[in-house]
Amino acid sequence: MRFATLQTSAGPTCAVQLADGRFLPVSGACKAAGLSEVALLDGSLQALIEGGDAALAAVADLLSRAQSGDATLTVLAVESPVLLAPLPRPKKNVFCVGRNYAEHIAEGARAQNTKIAVTEVPVYFTKPCTAVIGPNAAIPIFPHVSAQIDYEVELAVIIGRPGRDIPRHRAYDHIWGYTILNDITARDVQRRHGGQYFKGKGLDGSCPLGPVVVTRDELTDPQNVGLRTLVNGELRQSSTTAQMIFDIPTLIASLSEGLTLEPGDILATGTPSGVGYAMEPPTFLKDGDEVICEIDGIGRLANPVRTV
Amino acid sequence: MRFATLQTSAGPTCAVQLADGRFLPVSGACKAAGLSEVALLDGSLQALIEGGDAALAAVADLLSRAQSGDATLTVLAVESPVLLAPLPRPKKNVFCVGRNYAEHIAEGARAQNTKIAVTEVPVYFTKPCTAVIGPNAAIPIFPHVSAQIDYEVELAVIIGRPGRDIPRHRAYDHIWGYTILNDITARDVQRRHGGQYFKGKGLDGSCPLGPVVVTRDELTDPQNVGLRTLVNGELRQSSTTAQMIFDIPTLIASLSEGLTLEPGDILATGTPSGVGYAMEPPTFLKDGDEVICEIDGIGRLANPVRTV
Repeated sequence: MRFATLQTSAGPTCAVQLADGRFLPVSGACKAAGLSEVALLDGSLQALIEGGDAALAAVADLLSRAQSGDATLTVLAVESPVLLAPLPRPKKNVFCVGRNYAEHIAEGARAQNTKIAVTEVPVYFTKPCTAVIGPNAAIPIFPHVSAQIDYEVELAVIIGRPGRDIPRHRAYDHIWGYTILNDITARDVQRRHGGQYFKGKGLDGSCPLGPVVVTRDELTDPQNVGLRTLVNGELRQSSTTAQMIFDIPTLIASLSEGLTLEPGDILATGTPSGVGYAMEPPTFLKDGDEVICEIDGIGRLANPVRTV
Repeated sequence: MRFATLQTSAGPTCAVQLADGRFLPVSGACKAAGLSEVALLDGSLQALIEGGDAALAAVADLLSRAQSGDATLTVLAVESPVLLAPLPRPKKNVFCVGRNYAEHIAEGARAQNTKIAVTEVPVYFTKPCTAVIGPNAAIPIFPHVSAQIDYEVELAVIIGRPGRDIPRHRAYDHIWGYTILNDITARDVQRRHGGQYFKGKGLDGSCPLGPVVVTRDELTDPQNVGLRTLVNGELRQSSTTAQMIFDIPTLIASLSEGLTLEPGDILATGTPSGVGYAMEPPTFLKDGDEVICEIDGIGRLANPVRTV
């Protein structure tokens, strides 16, 4: 299934996508269908994820009834909704991984004229909740803060089942779904703050997310999907998740060592080569640009860039 | 005023401390006193902070009535409560600052036999919400994850008024209060993960917080208070916040450049020298130890250490 969060007059509302592209608000449809498991939730994707297998099964039932033309449900479907980030306000910072594609490490080393080693274990940092924006929302440029705003397309994993010390072979059991994340980075800020990535990757609007979360069963081979970035239609990044140095089970196992993962946690899995700062000459995002991040099987996340 | 979060049968409850040391649950007392501003909140310190000046003024009124012996209020006071972290579940990761005391930088350089520069701007990283524990809760040692668990006493600032690009001279207007934070660090994990601090500082239970939040007006000179750590009664860290390289207004101004701070945000301001890994020989926390972090004007945060 494919889930989005719609902007409605009643606030952000989780919706499941029908085969015809329309979005069916989950909570309202469940009420109409008398499915109490989900109708009792607050209508957010976070609550649905926390509802676990039972809630998801109820929505699958709902979707099946809607697909077979149940008019009491399909009348609720929305044609052209305004999409927010699927998780507009995560309950904690977004977990991110640095240096997880060899060619991205190599281009970074070239651009900085230095050596950057592949680490023995993944390199983690976070982006704050305030960075998250949805599809079509503007990526802001704050000229007094950074002159080097850059893009990074990443496959983001959404955690379902909580756990600590999750073994590699159990990792997929803890995944609820996948979405696209653009790890917007202020390169100059990143370098200035003593080598810690947080500030340069933590500015407001620096975490476009969406457009949808696809459930785990929908993306059958997440370790072998194409991902790319286009800026004003020009292809900049193009790779496949098969190129990750640390694969998804390794990332989950490593991150969860002594650290509990929770339902709704977001883990961005790193970006391939092709970022702006490694171009010759380095080329950063500017007012009026449009950035599109695509991942096969999920969709495309488009955001304009605006100086504020 | 001094606020704690009590463990009660109805869940975590925010309480204000009376002069005699007892704690008065804010929400219940406000209901008893007919103060609707606060009675409408959910009883958490987070909600009180979000309630702004009006909510705080209502509590000040309540406290004054209780101090003058209003029996309808004082009957609710709790003698020996179990304290949780004042903000048991922050709404985002805790903001932290590395390398903010010169002598701590020097001891780190000695211990690692390298040079560590004072950066031009502060070095930020975060600790996840799942790391937060309260007074007297055990700091866990996960033997399969780390053999080098270390303490770091820090003055933590609690943000009240939201803001982005907060100028230095307005910084204190955005502070709601202060508490004590022990930035527990797995030194071996910290070094292993490619230089990013997050994982080594993000393990479960690695963020003891409390015991109380004192309001801004209560700590009249936060840039000149003593702070220290004792392990099993032995003094390990002893310094003053006057030794910070980047003072509190600079930290808030720098962190908020292009990044919105929100009510309830926690900012730990760095640790002085005296940590275990810089001792000769390096000495880490072990099962059965007791760590006490003290800051003058706030109190003492005591936590046992337990192998799990």
